[in-house]
Amino acid sequence: MNRKERVVNTLRMLSVDAIDKANSGHPGLPLGAAPMAYELWSNHMNHYPKDPNWLNRDRFILSAGHGSALLYSLLTVFGYGLEIDDLKDFRQLHSKTPGHPEYGHTLGVECTTGPLGAGISMGVGMAVAEEALAKRYNRPDFEIIDHYTFVLCGDGDLMEGISNEASSFAGTQQLNKLIVLYDSNAITIEGSTDIAFKENVRQRYEALGWNTLEVTNGNDCDAIGEAISKAKTSNKPTLIEVHTEIGYGSPKAGDPAVHGSPLGEEGTSKTRSFFHLEDVPPFTIPNEVTEEIGEVKSSLKDKYTKWENLFEEYKRIYPEESKRLLNGMEGNFDLSFMEEDEFWYGPKDQATRGSSGMILNRISKKLSVLFGGSADLGPSNKSVMENTGYFSPKNREGRNINFGVREHAMGAIANGIALHGGWKAFCATFLVFSDYMKPQIRLSALMGVPVTYIFTHDSIGVGEDGPTHQPIEHLAMLRSIPNLITYRPADTTEVAAGWAVAMRNKNTPLAFSLTRQTLPEIENTSKEAMKGGYIVKKEGKDLDCILIGTGSELQYALEAAKDLEEKGFGIRVVSMPSQELFEAQAKSYRSEVLPEICTKRISIEAASTFGWHKYTGFEGRSIGIDEFGASGPGDEVYQSFGITKERIVKEALEILK
Amino acid sequence: MNRKERVVNTLRMLSVDAIDKANSGHPGLPLGAAPMAYELWSNHMNHYPKDPNWLNRDRFILSAGHGSALLYSLLTVFGYGLEIDDLKDFRQLHSKTPGHPEYGHTLGVECTTGPLGAGISMGVGMAVAEEALAKRYNRPDFEIIDHYTFVLCGDGDLMEGISNEASSFAGTQQLNKLIVLYDSNAITIEGSTDIAFKENVRQRYEALGWNTLEVTNGNDCDAIGEAISKAKTSNKPTLIEVHTEIGYGSPKAGDPAVHGSPLGEEGTSKTRSFFHLEDVPPFTIPNEVTEEIGEVKSSLKDKYTKWENLFEEYKRIYPEESKRLLNGMEGNFDLSFMEEDEFWYGPKDQATRGSSGMILNRISKKLSVLFGGSADLGPSNKSVMENTGYFSPKNREGRNINFGVREHAMGAIANGIALHGGWKAFCATFLVFSDYMKPQIRLSALMGVPVTYIFTHDSIGVGEDGPTHQPIEHLAMLRSIPNLITYRPADTTEVAAGWAVAMRNKNTPLAFSLTRQTLPEIENTSKEAMKGGYIVKKEGKDLDCILIGTGSELQYALEAAKDLEEKGFGIRVVSMPSQELFEAQAKSYRSEVLPEICTKRISIEAASTFGWHKYTGFEGRSIGIDEFGASGPGDEVYQSFGITKERIVKEALEILK
Repeated sequence: MNRKERVVNTLRMLSVDAIDKANSGHPGLPLGAAPMAYELWSNHMNHYPKDPNWLNRDRFILSAGHGSALLYSLLTVFGYGLEIDDLKDFRQLHSKTPGHPEYGHTLGVECTTGPLGAGISMGVGMAVAEEALAKRYNRPDFEIIDHYTFVLCGDGDLMEGISNEASSFAGTQQLNKLIVLYDSNAITIEGSTDIAFKENVRQRYEALGWNTLEVTNGNDCDAIGEAISKAKTSNKPTLIEVHTEIGYGSPKAGDPAVHGSPLGEEGTSKTRSFFHLEDVPPFTIPNEVTEEIGEVKSSLKDKYTKWENLFEEYKRIYPEESKRLLNGMEGNFDLSFMEEDEFWYGPKDQATRGSSGMILNRISKKLSVLFGGSADLGPSNKSVMENTGYFSPKNREGRNINFGVREHAMGAIANGIALHGGWKAFCATFLVFSDYMKPQIRLSALMGVPVTYIFTHDSIGVGEDGPTHQPIEHLAMLRSIPNLITYRPADTTEVAAGWAVAMRNKNTPLAFSLTRQTLPEIENTSKEAMKGGYIVKKEGKDLDCILIGTGSELQYALEAAKDLEEKGFGIRVVSMPSQELFEAQAKSYRSEVLPEICTKRISIEAASTFGWHKYTGFEGRSIGIDEFGASGPGDEVYQSFGITKERIVKEALEILK
Repeated sequence: MNRKERVVNTLRMLSVDAIDKANSGHPGLPLGAAPMAYELWSNHMNHYPKDPNWLNRDRFILSAGHGSALLYSLLTVFGYGLEIDDLKDFRQLHSKTPGHPEYGHTLGVECTTGPLGAGISMGVGMAVAEEALAKRYNRPDFEIIDHYTFVLCGDGDLMEGISNEASSFAGTQQLNKLIVLYDSNAITIEGSTDIAFKENVRQRYEALGWNTLEVTNGNDCDAIGEAISKAKTSNKPTLIEVHTEIGYGSPKAGDPAVHGSPLGEEGTSKTRSFFHLEDVPPFTIPNEVTEEIGEVKSSLKDKYTKWENLFEEYKRIYPEESKRLLNGMEGNFDLSFMEEDEFWYGPKDQATRGSSGMILNRISKKLSVLFGGSADLGPSNKSVMENTGYFSPKNREGRNINFGVREHAMGAIANGIALHGGWKAFCATFLVFSDYMKPQIRLSALMGVPVTYIFTHDSIGVGEDGPTHQPIEHLAMLRSIPNLITYRPADTTEVAAGWAVAMRNKNTPLAFSLTRQTLPEIENTSKEAMKGGYIVKKEGKDLDCILIGTGSELQYALEAAKDLEEKGFGIRVVSMPSQELFEAQAKSYRSEVLPEICTKRISIEAASTFGWHKYTGFEGRSIGIDEFGASGPGDEVYQSFGITKERIVKEALEILK
């Protein structure tokens, strides 16, 4: 066993020890994939443990997030801030080493993985961000941004549709600095991959426009290294299929059961013997390993220092650029233009998707950090920035992205861009197709990554396209996700308020819900919309009833209020574009807007009433649609589902009796 | 223009006329794809308009559902019950010709399409159902079940990840009776497919294990016909790439704008001229066309009659089989065994996923119509039927399916199996990954297709796998979907009740939410669970407070009730496995369970509280988790999020003050 093998085997046993102590975890991947991971981290990846957030570091994503023990072992051995005690705390509450890698929780973890297919797809986004940032900030002799994105993935990642979507996009975009190590062990939980996954993966990737390579022996670090070096010379993204054995070296090697079950005391001991580490107690890093890592780190430091010196010089010659770059990486953008009146101004009578497009373009003209696009619905989503072109192999300056009809990968790519830093990522599709990207919206929220989702065509107002295209339950789906702001504005002013929130957000994604149909500009809407809920019409006399409207239905609430006031009632109208922003206000403010004493309340929204009873209680009503929509002209569909002024008046009179 | 061309052009113009009159719709596909559709319907597809539900018909799916006008034109011309007046009503409220094809709404529509990628993936399910049904019911010289599944799809369908998942599955399964016509027009809404989709689609499909063919001229019916005939001889599924021009014949031919915008009066008139139909008024089927279709129908009738005669003979020789087949196609299964006690019996202390596996196997032993499996989590989901093998090219009798790590396609395949008929489809994964299949769950509900979703690992009780694997908002997501029953049982009895509902459902899908962790069998649970909500503990004295628990939290509600009763309060405990089933009960029953007079209510569920205020109002409390979970041993995570008896008691005392 040479010294390198000893490091690899130590990584394996640290992983196994952690899993065994937790009596929970996945030994299969660490045992099989440790050689490729170590070869990458020691000889090919530019990183510097003392500066884990180094902006030009190569990114590493463990897409097969269940192999977290391997990543934590690497981070421990390389000195990223994890200690042996953290490995001993593997999968324990509040430890730095949770079951799956969590971004923002453990230094050195580039993104949260576990849901399969997500990591590789976010990696595509990181590679996009790198290309665009390099184009923008590099100068002759100053390759300030010049790094790779490495992904380690398994069979499961490549079975998921999202990875095919993202990989097809990566091939089209010739993202040649994306290199994927495919831990090909031919085993999944239910058995051999032959039972469900007989395809020729490398041939598929070639069809997708990738360079593909094969390493037949996953324990052969030299061969792996050679493949990585070769991949770096390609003008396409590269998939390196590395054949491994799941749970290699353990008594359960090659057995699907080793994927997710600890080896147990005897299994662990036998595995330790197999790797000739009987002399090394559990949770121990032998001196020889420390020595080897020391040498690797010294060579990593040389590269880092070289870059640092270059960047110092860059800062001197290009002070503006460097400042913008550094601020951009921190998510600090100059948003002062949002204070000016012209940012808020809107013409009368515009669909909120149109207002959003208008505001998006106002922002884009002031700030060149917006980066995003639509899943082939740009013209409908009004998500195209007019002052810039489209990102492509020939135009790395374009900030519009053609994602293709790939909502799920779009979410991941946007997440990847946001995670990489330097940009403010957004993406767009119809609200009904937020369904396709739910797992990625969840990941934005879980990671605290401020992606902006532009969802248009947000109700039965879609009209003729019918129930497949008319969202009903989607607002409820989005509102129930923790740490996501769902925002359904009623007019241009409220749209501007939403964008102001989105642009300021650093740790929270925001999802817009915007109309296809034209809406009137409403008199009393204001910046107060940023509070999520506020009064747009005070009651003319003692308060009898509160009407709560959102988006396209606020107009009906106001019309109904007028009728009801004429009938002698005191009616307040509250606009509530965002329940989440409203809930984040002080209780005193919330009580001011929705006084506890007034329990006669009606919510109006052309969507599922699910979730509205929080504001309407037992005595109120929730007017909405708790069935699927129908195809027909939008206004007729509205009539047919009873989303009208008349209905509101009728129901209000019933509860006011 | 020969007669066939005249039919094709008539189909084109009927579509254009319908779109034009509606001033809404998608002329691009009908104009480009009419030849392939007509060639298929007239020369290759076995169907019989007078018996649209003929069990052995070839299935046809317009995966590119936005081309609905073409499908409606076909259904009109072939006499499926649509009339010219229906075409004139295209996209109007309550018409038979809604914006996208809707299953159950228009005769001859095999499934609801529009969300891209869905149709082709459901087609895979239909092909699975056919193979298995043929294996089960065919007898020597009686090929009663012997039909193809044809799909017409576009670029968008093939960009979506779901279609890659489903196609990889279809290749593995060698579903050679699945034939996909790929309308390859190289155009999407945002422009040329080159901007986002440069991959080699045929090469990808070859890698997936498909046979691929190419037709260079999409107007050449003979070449298309030749390819279809060739496809029928393959031992693999076939993708026929047919090169077309989007909006062919119109002034906007080849322009992305023709995808989804009516041609307008002038454009329509020019298009009519291009196709030499100036002499034919709008919405008219020329006599020549009627004649041609008459001949086609007569040949279709011959084939149908031949099959009918064969089936009559089959019925005579195999009365049992034919009865079972016909009943199965209607979804009529003998469920009398569910009345017996042994169906309901459960051992103490079992995870509800375990109970579900037990019941599933009880059903499987009595009824051999259950067909389904898991997205590579069978052992964890307890979704494996022990009395049957796995469906594979070598074993078409196996009723377990290895879907692979492909949740989204799994949903579609299950939908396709259910749509085909003859089976009771189910599928399984972790509840958190219901996210990946949301669009298909929605389609089950929208189509009214009774798929059973087995979602396990349904809370922070998952423990160590952490927040990526701990559902929080998923129950809210599912509950907000119209026409879906979400069902979270507390013990084996309630699990059995859920399966009883699922098996009886004919038009409603059901989603189980089941625990990973062991639960105690609860004393007073009963068949009443089928009502969605019922009293499991009556108050010992005058009613002071109602505790509403679901699933794993019902036990804590009962413990808390005991404590509170000891403190002198009258506490009722309601088990509410399904809000939807409860809402479907008469108001009198609901008031009996949850008397209006008692407004001090607490809901307890280890998930988002979103939606619970409907039952707890302003005076009650909703105990749940409105943030993401955490990695750690399950019981510690429960403690840490305050899902405990102590918390319930504390909150109850607060509101009882």
